[in-house]
Amino acid sequence: MTPNPFLDFMRALLKGFAQVFFMNNALTGLFFVAAIGLASQTSGDWTPFWGGLLGCAASTLAALVIDRAKDPLHSGMYGFNGVLLGIALPTFVQANALMWGLIVLGAVLTTVFVDALSNMLTKTWDVAVSTGPFVLTTWLLLLSVSAFAGLHFNSPATSVLPVPHAAHWADLTPLLAAQVTLRNISQVFLLNNAGSGLLILAGVALASRGAALAALLGALLALVFATVLGADRQAVHNGMYGFSAVLSAMAVAVVFITPSRQSAVVAGLAVLFTVIIQGALNKWLAPYGIPSLTAAYLIAMWLFTLPKMDLLIHPHQPNASSSFARR
Amino acid sequence: MTPNPFLDFMRALLKGFAQVFFMNNALTGLFFVAAIGLASQTSGDWTPFWGGLLGCAASTLAALVIDRAKDPLHSGMYGFNGVLLGIALPTFVQANALMWGLIVLGAVLTTVFVDALSNMLTKTWDVAVSTGPFVLTTWLLLLSVSAFAGLHFNSPATSVLPVPHAAHWADLTPLLAAQVTLRNISQVFLLNNAGSGLLILAGVALASRGAALAALLGALLALVFATVLGADRQAVHNGMYGFSAVLSAMAVAVVFITPSRQSAVVAGLAVLFTVIIQGALNKWLAPYGIPSLTAAYLIAMWLFTLPKMDLLIHPHQPNASSSFARR
Amino acid sequence: MTPNPFLDFMRALLKGFAQVFFMNNALTGLFFVAAIGLASQTSGDWTPFWGGLLGCAASTLAALVIDRAKDPLHSGMYGFNGVLLGIALPTFVQANALMWGLIVLGAVLTTVFVDALSNMLTKTWDVAVSTGPFVLTTWLLLLSVSAFAGLHFNSPATSVLPVPHAAHWADLTPLLAAQVTLRNISQVFLLNNAGSGLLILAGVALASRGAALAALLGALLALVFATVLGADRQAVHNGMYGFSAVLSAMAVAVVFITPSRQSAVVAGLAVLFTVIIQGALNKWLAPYGIPSLTAAYLIAMWLFTLPKMDLLIHPHQPNASSSFARR
Repeated sequence: MTPNPFLDFMRALLKGFAQVFFMNNALTGLFFVAAIGLASQTSGDWTPFWGGLLGCAASTLAALVIDRAKDPLHSGMYGFNGVLLGIALPTFVQANALMWGLIVLGAVLTTVFVDALSNMLTKTWDVAVSTGPFVLTTWLLLLSVSAFAGLHFNSPATSVLPVPHAAHWADLTPLLAAQVTLRNISQVFLLNNAGSGLLILAGVALASRGAALAALLGALLALVFATVLGADRQAVHNGMYGFSAVLSAMAVAVVFITPSRQSAVVAGLAVLFTVIIQGALNKWLAPYGIPSLTAAYLIAMWLFTLPKMDLLIHPHQPNASSSFARR
Repeated sequence: MTPNPFLDFMRALLKGFAQVFFMNNALTGLFFVAAIGLASQTSGDWTPFWGGLLGCAASTLAALVIDRAKDPLHSGMYGFNGVLLGIALPTFVQANALMWGLIVLGAVLTTVFVDALSNMLTKTWDVAVSTGPFVLTTWLLLLSVSAFAGLHFNSPATSVLPVPHAAHWADLTPLLAAQVTLRNISQVFLLNNAGSGLLILAGVALASRGAALAALLGALLALVFATVLGADRQAVHNGMYGFSAVLSAMAVAVVFITPSRQSAVVAGLAVLFTVIIQGALNKWLAPYGIPSLTAAYLIAMWLFTLPKMDLLIHPHQPNASSSFARR
Repeated sequence: MTPNPFLDFMRALLKGFAQVFFMNNALTGLFFVAAIGLASQTSGDWTPFWGGLLGCAASTLAALVIDRAKDPLHSGMYGFNGVLLGIALPTFVQANALMWGLIVLGAVLTTVFVDALSNMLTKTWDVAVSTGPFVLTTWLLLLSVSAFAGLHFNSPATSVLPVPHAAHWADLTPLLAAQVTLRNISQVFLLNNAGSGLLILAGVALASRGAALAALLGALLALVFATVLGADRQAVHNGMYGFSAVLSAMAVAVVFITPSRQSAVVAGLAVLFTVIIQGALNKWLAPYGIPSLTAAYLIAMWLFTLPKMDLLIHPHQPNASSSFARR
């Protein structure tokens, strides 16, 4: 759009942040960067903030150098996996020179993963790669921490299974419900901060009101269903049972399927399933002490977008004015 | 066939049961329902019986509503995964309102899985989805039990590895051998009951004598090989090392490959491999305390039907009079 | 080439060994057999030597009987997975009649796996099956050892996580560095023997100097990066962090991609990633006490050959004079 390569690259970085919530909009990305900054200001730990920026830059530059693909760059499609990896690594691993080096290496690998998985999933079955590269690369990096003396986890992993204190309706004041709903949104960026959730929701609404509504309802439904099932109270209140459900709701209700009454019902089903998968993954990963990241969302999203069912599926045809880039 | 929608649906339900053994025959399904009833009568626990019916109805109705696909409905292709999930859940999880709700939700999900996996496996590589949806959905549900205070396992999971008492030829009287062979068949429905195995075998023979012979020989060979390897005596005698092998034998010898002397030899190889995979999966799942279900069969079946080898593979061309529906 | 079927078969066996390092050359295979013999002579344990020969013969014969495919036989494409399985089994499992029987059964299964995975990976995405059949079959066999009283591990599995003594620059004399580099090569055949590594390197150089150079540089870079990360000293010195990296370097730099300056840089990236995956797999498999085999190489190789990136990928077009057979 602009012939200035620096502004071009800045815009690509912001869109890289925006694409974490499927948005193809630099201003939305700016809201997200602010949301991460707010959480860092609150917690006093700015390593996730700088990690996210570094990861976004490294994965985007790798796409420029390796791919020469200009168009995906402009829509931020090669940045969002790097963003999430760059936030996740300092969240779980102590910051040292090696950790910062692994953010760069890992972010470059997510770009290779995007190309590799696109060739498998998108070309063959027309489903999105989405955060698959982030989850796979980060899992491998976190699994390897115990094997290398140069890396250290921030805190010893603690298992909460079986559940010590289950979430309960009695605890759920309207204020807490609102906070958890917003934390369900902020945890997509691995942030435990209701204010950040509000900024993120505003950024999404800026680009697409339908997507913001889907995120909000998905976050609320996930809270309700996790409470019905009796998930761990602390985990529920921190937004750990909702962030994948938020993405599932958006993906199935508005992003990958043309919005309709049917897609809304199926998105509800996808949210319920995502909460169950979240519980299953917590158990599955417990022996390894690594987090599930957005894997629950990926499983649900792939399951519900693969079928191309007559009734449901009218895959989104993004046009020039669409807020979404196909990913 | 009949214009009566109620009878139509009943027939679809019975075929859903029949398809657990690859049979497209409502009367065979009736034999299978009787076999499950017999086991419930013997054990005094009818929850698997009602769970199987509920799961079959929910997954079949979901196919009607979501898919509008009439033909697969008539052959029971959307019912058998729901049947197995509906039997498995109350077998491992204490019955309460939430458990019954999860049978309905899980059965609906198996229908989505059937469509999703068909698009991956069948369209791309021409292999059957088979019980894949049942295994994946039930694994996720059972893994999540520890994460949710509203769900409880029936009994604490006990690992039998390394093997305390190995199966031994000396124990194997002709009567016991016959009982174990039949239990290898009944355990496909998660039933530990030789009489049920006999009813199931009769139901299969009613639709296809070749398939019944394959099931019987597969069950016997699995018993022999598990004893050669020295598998856990209790597990072998309860039919736990044979049920997947029964399905492998049927799939490779008669269902997915045109029966011949070669397909019989290769089916024998598939049975041996299935017994080994069964042992491997028991070890793999031990940290999680969840059962392998029919995963050993799935791995062996996919391995042996993927190659389309010159010598072996003449994929079955079902015609109007065939007992099998391609699945 | 020769009308003598016995010589033909001998040549196929030797090429089966050679293909472990991607070489389509019987003389190279002879060097490899000598390398395995040297290690057996040194350790006094000849079971891996005979296991490798038996596995090669069984998998190759299975290809003849099942496949009637003459060409892959001549290039050794059906032998190398059997070779590795035949070496791996006696390395980890006590030799008895059952163990030898499982080498034959397992080697036959690798041939079925080659056909099955070719249909999935090569036909659909044009990536090589490579040692996938060896890794999958051997994992299943080793996992099943605890489930069967007739099989016993050679030594109790010991976990070295978290790392007790990290590798350190101070330990790394030039002599040790040379030894570890050669052991990184010999461990591809599961041999802890620098002399064997030298014989293998010579055998590779005989067929392709570029491939030998890639192997050497890959082995060296893996040693450097494992030391930077602080991997377990004993494991690094025994070549456990380098063998998969050697294969990754060869695969990306010269075998599956036309050699160029770009392919060399990307191969370096692949080596770094392989070392990290090696650490991750050590952690992932620790609860099961089974080795990662060449899985780290497979993940990296598939990741880097799937993308078909504009800049990088000019898939190798083997011609009549090429040292490599596409695999």
